[in-house]
Amino acid sequence: MIVVMKPQATEEQIQQVIQRIEDYGLRVHLSKGTEVTILGVIGDDRIINRDQLVHMEGVDKLIPVLKPYKLASREFHPEDTVFEVKGVKIGGEQVVVIAGPCAVESREQILEAAQKVKEAGAHMLRGGAYKPRTSPYSFQGLGEEGLKYLKEASEKTGLPVVTEVMDIQTLPLVSEYADVLQIGARNMQNFPLLHAVGESQKPVLLKRGMSSTLEELLMSAEYILTHGNQQVILCERGIRTFENYTRNTLDINAAPALKMLSHLPVFIDPSHGTGRWELVEPVSRAAVAAGADGLIIEVHPRPDQALSDGAQSLTPERFASLMKTLVPVALAVGRSL
Amino acid sequence: MIVVMKPQATEEQIQQVIQRIEDYGLRVHLSKGTEVTILGVIGDDRIINRDQLVHMEGVDKLIPVLKPYKLASREFHPEDTVFEVKGVKIGGEQVVVIAGPCAVESREQILEAAQKVKEAGAHMLRGGAYKPRTSPYSFQGLGEEGLKYLKEASEKTGLPVVTEVMDIQTLPLVSEYADVLQIGARNMQNFPLLHAVGESQKPVLLKRGMSSTLEELLMSAEYILTHGNQQVILCERGIRTFENYTRNTLDINAAPALKMLSHLPVFIDPSHGTGRWELVEPVSRAAVAAGADGLIIEVHPRPDQALSDGAQSLTPERFASLMKTLVPVALAVGRSL
Amino acid sequence: MIVVMKPQATEEQIQQVIQRIEDYGLRVHLSKGTEVTILGVIGDDRIINRDQLVHMEGVDKLIPVLKPYKLASREFHPEDTVFEVKGVKIGGEQVVVIAGPCAVESREQILEAAQKVKEAGAHMLRGGAYKPRTSPYSFQGLGEEGLKYLKEASEKTGLPVVTEVMDIQTLPLVSEYADVLQIGARNMQNFPLLHAVGESQKPVLLKRGMSSTLEELLMSAEYILTHGNQQVILCERGIRTFENYTRNTLDINAAPALKMLSHLPVFIDPSHGTGRWELVEPVSRAAVAAGADGLIIEVHPRPDQALSDGAQSLTPERFASLMKTLVPVALAVGRSL
Amino acid sequence: MIVVMKPQATEEQIQQVIQRIEDYGLRVHLSKGTEVTILGVIGDDRIINRDQLVHMEGVDKLIPVLKPYKLASREFHPEDTVFEVKGVKIGGEQVVVIAGPCAVESREQILEAAQKVKEAGAHMLRGGAYKPRTSPYSFQGLGEEGLKYLKEASEKTGLPVVTEVMDIQTLPLVSEYADVLQIGARNMQNFPLLHAVGESQKPVLLKRGMSSTLEELLMSAEYILTHGNQQVILCERGIRTFENYTRNTLDINAAPALKMLSHLPVFIDPSHGTGRWELVEPVSRAAVAAGADGLIIEVHPRPDQALSDGAQSLTPERFASLMKTLVPVALAVGRSL
Repeated sequence: MIVVMKPQATEEQIQQVIQRIEDYGLRVHLSKGTEVTILGVIGDDRIINRDQLVHMEGVDKLIPVLKPYKLASREFHPEDTVFEVKGVKIGGEQVVVIAGPCAVESREQILEAAQKVKEAGAHMLRGGAYKPRTSPYSFQGLGEEGLKYLKEASEKTGLPVVTEVMDIQTLPLVSEYADVLQIGARNMQNFPLLHAVGESQKPVLLKRGMSSTLEELLMSAEYILTHGNQQVILCERGIRTFENYTRNTLDINAAPALKMLSHLPVFIDPSHGTGRWELVEPVSRAAVAAGADGLIIEVHPRPDQALSDGAQSLTPERFASLMKTLVPVALAVGRSL
Repeated sequence: MIVVMKPQATEEQIQQVIQRIEDYGLRVHLSKGTEVTILGVIGDDRIINRDQLVHMEGVDKLIPVLKPYKLASREFHPEDTVFEVKGVKIGGEQVVVIAGPCAVESREQILEAAQKVKEAGAHMLRGGAYKPRTSPYSFQGLGEEGLKYLKEASEKTGLPVVTEVMDIQTLPLVSEYADVLQIGARNMQNFPLLHAVGESQKPVLLKRGMSSTLEELLMSAEYILTHGNQQVILCERGIRTFENYTRNTLDINAAPALKMLSHLPVFIDPSHGTGRWELVEPVSRAAVAAGADGLIIEVHPRPDQALSDGAQSLTPERFASLMKTLVPVALAVGRSL
Repeated sequence: MIVVMKPQATEEQIQQVIQRIEDYGLRVHLSKGTEVTILGVIGDDRIINRDQLVHMEGVDKLIPVLKPYKLASREFHPEDTVFEVKGVKIGGEQVVVIAGPCAVESREQILEAAQKVKEAGAHMLRGGAYKPRTSPYSFQGLGEEGLKYLKEASEKTGLPVVTEVMDIQTLPLVSEYADVLQIGARNMQNFPLLHAVGESQKPVLLKRGMSSTLEELLMSAEYILTHGNQQVILCERGIRTFENYTRNTLDINAAPALKMLSHLPVFIDPSHGTGRWELVEPVSRAAVAAGADGLIIEVHPRPDQALSDGAQSLTPERFASLMKTLVPVALAVGRSL
Repeated sequence: MIVVMKPQATEEQIQQVIQRIEDYGLRVHLSKGTEVTILGVIGDDRIINRDQLVHMEGVDKLIPVLKPYKLASREFHPEDTVFEVKGVKIGGEQVVVIAGPCAVESREQILEAAQKVKEAGAHMLRGGAYKPRTSPYSFQGLGEEGLKYLKEASEKTGLPVVTEVMDIQTLPLVSEYADVLQIGARNMQNFPLLHAVGESQKPVLLKRGMSSTLEELLMSAEYILTHGNQQVILCERGIRTFENYTRNTLDINAAPALKMLSHLPVFIDPSHGTGRWELVEPVSRAAVAAGADGLIIEVHPRPDQALSDGAQSLTPERFASLMKTLVPVALAVGRSL
């Protein structure tokens, strides 16, 4: 960390700041410039309370140098993290496609969806039993009943299940049925829940919050990693911007940037990232070309009857066609599908 | 709701959409324009699943006309909601000031803070026992111990307590000690928690999410109101934008806009809204002038030793001075302090 | 356009609004709903002054139905616009790559850059002679001298030249040397300049403003198109968001969305869209996979000596390597390079 | 400036960076930390080309310490800048109110508007003769005819005129009629125009771009100040965010922040900052309470017939009522109106 002092800071103020830093067991490198004095902190300064320091007399601002996350960083763990979920390798050479409806709506719907996405080549099945909805008047999911249908669909198709967990109460129940626990964008900074899924030791698909920076996403992954749970997938799903033609703005930069900063696998959700099914196909191809390790795509047997997210869901036919076009793109960047 | 058909929509497609809407028990008004056909839905169309409709053949887009919230709207409830918390009237003529440290750090700290803000004229005491922190390595709050200190500080000063509840697990415990339950910005769309505080029937201070629209804030209030809990305070605390000189961008428009749209009391948090203590004073005055019903301000006996948010905390002296300057501003807009 | 009246609007107010619309020679379709009355305007209502209407008594809000642009819309012009610039076909089957330094810095620099990008397979040469810089203390470009060097580089390599024009004063001069006039992001809504490049009848590369919506970009294209100048390239170059790890957030959705909405060719600028050369390569591949008609990429012989944008410039070697990896991606989506 | 080296940077790379910095005539302070080496640059490093440095081998990132603007900074010029425009003191104890229509539409309209705002207590008259409009089909202003009407209105009322200049071509003409030249938000980074108004030595009202940071606004002011033109007013007019209930999000923090960072007077535009006339009144009061030196407010004799911005224009009656309510707020913060 670097402490920049105000131009008018007194010698006494500078000494007090140095003393405070040394009280943490760290050393300070003093640079007196022509306009300002700066103090370079030597040692692992993540232990310093920055909010305090900024309030000391004479301090202008603090500039962090070290990244605030450690376990999630590539510096700490240079090799890619690769793990298996029921035989599906995550983070490896193959691009992994998770597909299925936004919400489980009925036994028939999820069985049909699972069958169709399996046929089209998907590797895992998605479907929500507990749904976070902006409005209390919207369909909130089938709950445990939905989980049971998911399980049945998984057993019939052999596809592992990815499903969202919304709170600690339902975590034990959801864990019984899910192969991968999804943390939704709205819960990316639900810290008690992050701790709980960390402790669960189950694989976690962690979605980026709609206004969270990449650094914050990695800090949330760090919460899970501190429990020794290494099976974390980072998922870019679009951020909120001023543009309103699309539901969100898919941050394509995030895929290569996260791969640089972290060893964790990175997935992309073009369904939420665009909010329009017509854009899902080209943006899926872009995601693979940008180096994403996987995709999560909403597919519904009859989008015009979907209880949620119909506007961004593909029909099984369109999904099958998309899968075909993804193959050469994956090959073009040295991956398989 | 208005359904705009694509220019090339066929007569059959139009009839199918009309049929679908009528299946909900609603009526449709058909307008054939020179370029497009639009269908006006007559009746309370909040029951229609928009995501489905948008997927029907020939549909271009849906345009909502009715507001998606009802209980929170001023149309539904024209008079201001006013309620009392241990003798402090919220939403009335008096501007209510909640003050105290970001986090309870020790018995001494919170007792001193409470005493000082009471002397300066604050009406309620804030202080976090459970703290949502971006980093797992930051101070996470004292938990129940902190709640006990808060209670003691409250009893000694007579100030009611506002404190954050982060999850359903700790809600019963927090409810024993808190007079007002705070829902933090990161939990504004933690829907299970909203349901739970709704059921608790305790007053709730609901903070706007850092990238939530006013409509989404009102929808989250609606979650609480559906449980018959009318004691909800809306709180603007700054939104996330590209500007990085300040921690957040305080949306001053939100105060009068929320007062127009809703009957609920509206508070403003200039500490998080600016992130810099030097800006808290002028922005607090602005908040009162804009018509806010209250303020929530971070005050710490020694900000340079605060375990969190020191950069935006006022000293007790500065807070006392601020309170003095707020009085004439409140008077200028027909309020008292 | 649809006019939504307030719930309490009187019959007289409704009639006044209808009268006002009919004064424009348009017809009105009246729908009385259970809560509100809505008026559907029939005819080309782009001539109505919306700001006036919204101020009439009883009016709640106006909802546009028709797109505000016409000449730029695909509805108006269903086939892709394709045009040639000195033998390079823009908007056709081939993905066109424009490459070169941010700024022309010397005769040697631009000649070397042009030679190297030509060898690597670029189709056009970029380079700024007039540079918009945030700071008055930064290098502002070589002006006419730079244009002359560009011309020489173009003649030696056969690459057509794309260069920025910043104001009307220098437009005649820049037009003498440029094959394509670039309108920078900061000038996307410099309307006098848009009119002038429209009149010039030269091809225009129109960059999206850093906080402009797709609709606003298309409206700015419309300014140029109204002068009968059809040779307009739309260019996504990243938008400003809260994310600060990257210089901008490249809006990958924009590529397929603009292709849907408009017939104009769509290019992507991964250099400004990321601000980091390490990300330029994967994001370029993503752009091609998403359906972009072309790329504009910053390449500098020695980025560590560049007078501007060094951080996002590729070396000629890295550019050559990128071009090789783009070929299979282009093929994978049915294009050539 | 501080240069942070990568953890794996070699000694040779570090020495090359030091050499490069010393070539600028600056000195370097080296700090070897446990994880990284940082180099503190001593001297006025605004002359260093940062884009180059970031591209050198071994460099991780550059962190600026000095502010990039100088003439606009309060450090350079501690006292408030105060200047007079035809007897109206800008930046002094009195809060200055500029009022009038968005656009000059006719002689009658501007004469009536000027008379009414004068009676209500406004100090200056606004009105646009050249209008930047998103759509080429919208009213673009009366041009020179509008300027003449403005002049007449000014002479009849004694109010100085503030009007927008959109390009260098019309600058001489606009300068003949204007007392203050307005640079609109879309032109905040039209650098040739900034140079030109700097040279003109006329007072300038510089509006913040809709996605510009405070630092960028100050850099644009710096462009004007480098020409020795000290008469610059900074104007916050709302920024673009995800919130769409209001036209823009008025950044109230900007008022006190700009006053801290700079000596220049700071005005606020609540009309564009909200986009809704119902919000203009409370937000104007907030602006004065936050310490703004002035306001610029749209007033139209008949907003429902305005050719632009009717939705955010006050009637003369509402403006007169607003002015009355501003007086006690100004007094409450030690100002007059």
